[in-house]
Amino acid sequence: MHPIDKYIRTIPDFPEPGVIFRDVSTVTQNPEGMKLAIDSMQEKLEGLDFDVLVGLESRGFLFGAPLAYNLNKGFSLIRKKGKLPYETIAEEYDLEYGTDIMEMHIDALEPGQKVVIVDDLIATGGSLKGAIKLVEKLGAEVVDCLFLVELKGLNGRDNVPGYRVDSVVSYEGK
Amino acid sequence: MHPIDKYIRTIPDFPEPGVIFRDVSTVTQNPEGMKLAIDSMQEKLEGLDFDVLVGLESRGFLFGAPLAYNLNKGFSLIRKKGKLPYETIAEEYDLEYGTDIMEMHIDALEPGQKVVIVDDLIATGGSLKGAIKLVEKLGAEVVDCLFLVELKGLNGRDNVPGYRVDSVVSYEGK
Repeated sequence: MHPIDKYIRTIPDFPEPGVIFRDVSTVTQNPEGMKLAIDSMQEKLEGLDFDVLVGLESRGFLFGAPLAYNLNKGFSLIRKKGKLPYETIAEEYDLEYGTDIMEMHIDALEPGQKVVIVDDLIATGGSLKGAIKLVEKLGAEVVDCLFLVELKGLNGRDNVPGYRVDSVVSYEGK
Repeated sequence: MHPIDKYIRTIPDFPEPGVIFRDVSTVTQNPEGMKLAIDSMQEKLEGLDFDVLVGLESRGFLFGAPLAYNLNKGFSLIRKKGKLPYETIAEEYDLEYGTDIMEMHIDALEPGQKVVIVDDLIATGGSLKGAIKLVEKLGAEVVDCLFLVELKGLNGRDNVPGYRVDSVVSYEGK
């Protein structure tokens, strides 16, 4: 198990019975946890040629923004519907029950840019799939999808075949 | 005017007629803007003795998380109601119309810790006032409130008398 594991809090039966929630707030609120998380994610990007990071609101911001600063890249935002003030494109994506809508500004990326998508956790891959569609609608190319935590049992990778997916720590269950 | 100004997009009549919205997504998506924003905020903290940064969801995460990483501090979260998975304390705060609720985990801070609250922008100071109350409920001490942008015309500082407030760039209007 990766050493970041000891900073991740496990909350049984949240948000519903049978689900084990992986809480990353205990990672960021600890100085050593924060440093280890960012450094470990950054290692995954070593040698990768890319232009910009795209983070998913709001936990993706916690990890993507420090990576962007460290690597001297821009950090573009994917937000929930209605939060972005300028002209947007939208994408519906699957949640465990029902769907939701995520948006990006139409000028958040330039055509041809190489993009790394960042979030705290990959579960079923529903939001990742939506994020990839948004990036590609803007004419940019997804070269990596980077997560701190992966819930292997939910097979999120299978939802985005052909895309590179990196995670720092993965758990067997869901 | 501070050089960060040229990265901030001005959107007239958002979210309603007469309001000029200051969009910081154009700061973070530009590598130079991101670097200048974080470096300029970090300068404000030089010489300040503190233990942990507290960021307000979700734009506060964009600036607070890189600062925490750079300064080797923890980064604790204030989120909208219902988003945090562990036991929380809550605080109602004033919006321009009506109120909303923000929450923190009960163990997000330790009593006696010195806290810097971070957000992208201070307007009326309603959310800042709520954030200060949450931090103090946990027995911690607010030693600075740090923003990238300040809308002077809304007098947010006057809403939190006695607290130190720092901002990188301020605009006369609202």
